[in-house]
Amino acid sequence: MSMHTAALRDRACLIVHGPDQPGLVAAVTALITRHKANIVSLDQYTDDPEGGNFFQRVVFHMNDLAAAFPDLKADLAQTLEPYGMTWKLTDQSVPKRMAILASTSDHCLLELLWRHRRGELNVTIPMVISNHTNTAEDVRSFGIPFFHVPSQGPDKSAAEAEILKLLAGNVDFVVLARYMQILSDDFITGVGVPVINIHHSFLPAFIGAGPYKKAKERGVKLIGATSHYVTKDLDEGPIIEQDVARVDHSHSAAALQARGAYVERAVLSRAVQWHAEDRVIRHGNQTIVFT
Amino acid sequence: MSMHTAALRDRACLIVHGPDQPGLVAAVTALITRHKANIVSLDQYTDDPEGGNFFQRVVFHMNDLAAAFPDLKADLAQTLEPYGMTWKLTDQSVPKRMAILASTSDHCLLELLWRHRRGELNVTIPMVISNHTNTAEDVRSFGIPFFHVPSQGPDKSAAEAEILKLLAGNVDFVVLARYMQILSDDFITGVGVPVINIHHSFLPAFIGAGPYKKAKERGVKLIGATSHYVTKDLDEGPIIEQDVARVDHSHSAAALQARGAYVERAVLSRAVQWHAEDRVIRHGNQTIVFT
Amino acid sequence: MSMHTAALRDRACLIVHGPDQPGLVAAVTALITRHKANIVSLDQYTDDPEGGNFFQRVVFHMNDLAAAFPDLKADLAQTLEPYGMTWKLTDQSVPKRMAILASTSDHCLLELLWRHRRGELNVTIPMVISNHTNTAEDVRSFGIPFFHVPSQGPDKSAAEAEILKLLAGNVDFVVLARYMQILSDDFITGVGVPVINIHHSFLPAFIGAGPYKKAKERGVKLIGATSHYVTKDLDEGPIIEQDVARVDHSHSAAALQARGAYVERAVLSRAVQWHAEDRVIRHGNQTIVFT
Amino acid sequence: MSMHTAALRDRACLIVHGPDQPGLVAAVTALITRHKANIVSLDQYTDDPEGGNFFQRVVFHMNDLAAAFPDLKADLAQTLEPYGMTWKLTDQSVPKRMAILASTSDHCLLELLWRHRRGELNVTIPMVISNHTNTAEDVRSFGIPFFHVPSQGPDKSAAEAEILKLLAGNVDFVVLARYMQILSDDFITGVGVPVINIHHSFLPAFIGAGPYKKAKERGVKLIGATSHYVTKDLDEGPIIEQDVARVDHSHSAAALQARGAYVERAVLSRAVQWHAEDRVIRHGNQTIVFT
Repeated sequence: MSMHTAALRDRACLIVHGPDQPGLVAAVTALITRHKANIVSLDQYTDDPEGGNFFQRVVFHMNDLAAAFPDLKADLAQTLEPYGMTWKLTDQSVPKRMAILASTSDHCLLELLWRHRRGELNVTIPMVISNHTNTAEDVRSFGIPFFHVPSQGPDKSAAEAEILKLLAGNVDFVVLARYMQILSDDFITGVGVPVINIHHSFLPAFIGAGPYKKAKERGVKLIGATSHYVTKDLDEGPIIEQDVARVDHSHSAAALQARGAYVERAVLSRAVQWHAEDRVIRHGNQTIVFT
Repeated sequence: MSMHTAALRDRACLIVHGPDQPGLVAAVTALITRHKANIVSLDQYTDDPEGGNFFQRVVFHMNDLAAAFPDLKADLAQTLEPYGMTWKLTDQSVPKRMAILASTSDHCLLELLWRHRRGELNVTIPMVISNHTNTAEDVRSFGIPFFHVPSQGPDKSAAEAEILKLLAGNVDFVVLARYMQILSDDFITGVGVPVINIHHSFLPAFIGAGPYKKAKERGVKLIGATSHYVTKDLDEGPIIEQDVARVDHSHSAAALQARGAYVERAVLSRAVQWHAEDRVIRHGNQTIVFT
Repeated sequence: MSMHTAALRDRACLIVHGPDQPGLVAAVTALITRHKANIVSLDQYTDDPEGGNFFQRVVFHMNDLAAAFPDLKADLAQTLEPYGMTWKLTDQSVPKRMAILASTSDHCLLELLWRHRRGELNVTIPMVISNHTNTAEDVRSFGIPFFHVPSQGPDKSAAEAEILKLLAGNVDFVVLARYMQILSDDFITGVGVPVINIHHSFLPAFIGAGPYKKAKERGVKLIGATSHYVTKDLDEGPIIEQDVARVDHSHSAAALQARGAYVERAVLSRAVQWHAEDRVIRHGNQTIVFT
Repeated sequence: MSMHTAALRDRACLIVHGPDQPGLVAAVTALITRHKANIVSLDQYTDDPEGGNFFQRVVFHMNDLAAAFPDLKADLAQTLEPYGMTWKLTDQSVPKRMAILASTSDHCLLELLWRHRRGELNVTIPMVISNHTNTAEDVRSFGIPFFHVPSQGPDKSAAEAEILKLLAGNVDFVVLARYMQILSDDFITGVGVPVINIHHSFLPAFIGAGPYKKAKERGVKLIGATSHYVTKDLDEGPIIEQDVARVDHSHSAAALQARGAYVERAVLSRAVQWHAEDRVIRHGNQTIVFT
């Protein structure tokens, strides 16, 4: 949904999750009423009505939100403490800062820049970092800084250190838009913010490199793409979104790749939008997505 | 989702809708907490955060629900009266009674009977009524009564009166499973319960008779089906669900019809399931569907 | 597409495949013209225009086809011999004989029986064999013989031998409609006709048992089904058709299974139809499907 | 499928259509063999095996095609004349020249420019014409000339005349990429080349202006887009491609429009690609599309 700054003023998003308990929803909604806020949307899910986990996303409108934010947070801390819940309150008029890492492929990168320019992604983009230079001109034509950090042989620690230095303190999450370097555990730990990847297959099918070639060899009738949070286990992180496209015997591996590019850019865009709007809650190796 | 009687015991579904107001969600959830019930799921939607309409569906579990039902209803009436809301409370362990009207086509009819037998539709089926006899044996093999009410020439009032007499007091909603007679305004008024139809096109395209023939002539690349509540305006009632299937130039009108049959039965089944589970709220000529 | 016996009278289907060579299409079409037949449809595919493999399916109409069949075959043998091609000629008015093997699940089995009764599958069904008895009454209500061959402990050779004896000489292909026994290599060799399976996942994801449970654990956003020819390598045979359905975090493993059942029955039905109509050509571990 | 100039060298595409007759396919394929060409792909369709219309698309490879082109055309004229067929032979290494007409919306325009830059559309783009200037910089950054022809009040004849002058002799087809002016009959006659439009609804639903607003009011559960050839009857020309996206009650008309933009650009791109590759045959108000 198109985002307009005006529409997001004085809007907060509250995420609550933890062990399900009677009275939880009443406590949260009473708090919101107490602060004279008006609920815009509310989604919730309990994975097991008997002693399961509770997940809730509430968007509410409140006059002079920015001024009231500290009070609101203090009240939330006090109200939710007895329930032992994890919670997070965000001001929707403050967009998250998103860095993009890319390589030579431009389709996912340009799709994100384009949707951002159309006002469809509630983010700012402080930088694009690539280990190649071919997309520099395109990126800068969108008014976005481009940094070139080449991959230097098998030892990636210097390049990773340089990337970490660029990111440090400047971003709220990182998107790997077909970035073709495998990140080290140290990098993933060190970056300290969520990292979202797009994998060019319908995971868990065709894990690892060369999925379109593998798909061609296996003779599948659908190809797919998967966007997931990056964890230390390659291609094993929590899945945010997936989609597929129909193919047939007449498609070469190159044709699968060309067709797949359109699935990749759509899937990654949706995942980024949902993350930017606090619609995704991680729970173990799974996600709850309130679309 | 498969329905098991045990899982639905002591479960209530509350639908609330009307003008949006601050405090509404808090009032409802506080009431549920007060009655020591536990919220299983909660969906809500407001069509305009500034003075719009509010729609909510809450499913909750409450021990000895049947005994507490009158108290609960009294409390709801008192709590929601100041807000001027419309509300409805149902006991999910009491399935709705669904009559099916059919003609010669069996695909939608058999799909419903089959899903019912698999325990996927939370309904009872007290009767199938048809203006033809070809499906009688099939229907009865599912253990369901079959009544033959033939259409008798241009004056349908006698047949309609006979159908109304069979339905009166015995059903909570009626499904037209490719019933090929146009019902009179008097019938629709007289039946007094919701009537769900399946139309064999992607409405509002190809309104009226012969949609597959029209689709072939217009050369469309997708065919569809639409399930909607029946109103006095033919094919104009609130849409519950729609879907499409891809076709191409090589499909004859007969082939479109054969392919469309599978879209029709899927679309009608979803609409019936959602209605049976109180997931659909009518609002003017539109529906809010909490899936 | 709905099959009518009348429409299929005097219709032949010719499959040709082998090394691509100049003049091949001209030779085949000239032969058909020579026999005063009229081409109804023609599909072809070459996997590499430079020295690749050629695949062709031609359907043609020819008066008194049955009488001319031997002549036609002799001419084909002589014409195609110099090209070293594999070919197969079938009379479309002679439906293939299909046996179905099932276990307790009825959704794939009933879908096939139902589509057959609607005239949408150009097959005869001489028998259904199950290692359970729960579907016997349903099967026989379609006028089809039902044989119960129970699985007897870890040694399946006796049961398999009994099944082979029932099938021998009576069927042209076998469909495993959620048959939950793993067939031995000896069975697959001994049966001597193609065997089509439906696997309840989007292969190669979730190979083996319990795919819906695995899908739930991995947190996928789409579930799927795959129909393939059975080979000695479990779940590794040539894929005929696949499809998916969207799911989310709120679906339990049981709900995935219920939703998946509808994908399974649709995927298996399409695969069976295409096989019955000689639309599928096996090539190594892949299929060329002319839909 | 990605197009590479090298791969298209010496490749011809032959389209044949007209009354179906025995021997037609044999005559065409014999001709191709006679010229020592090799068939790369062949699709054909007959709308009625008894006296219907025949449609064929053959792609073949022939050494030194450009030199042999006149001979080939002469032979085709002579061979096909007795059959009374319409035919067209094109050299696939010569891309069609495509002009784009646009207004303020950039999504369809940029998608085409982008796919063109990725080498996925076998066209050249000699010009973009818009009645607004907002996309000028973007268009020129792709190295493509941009011409501004403003709409001037109710009399469009001057603007249309200016556009016709720019197009005359320079283009093989025209694409309306959300061009928001209704073209006069004189323009459509005068332009003399095919004109492809993208309509922002699933035609024939919501013909005319404001389809997303109408879709919201009607409460549909899917929105769509349709690409068609422009004829004198607004929104009534032969459909090339259509697709849909799922929506629900929570989408405003603006949200439908934002979501629809992604369907529009995908549908228009496919239609343009198929037209550029001579995959679309017009037949009355329908199209045969060999994908």
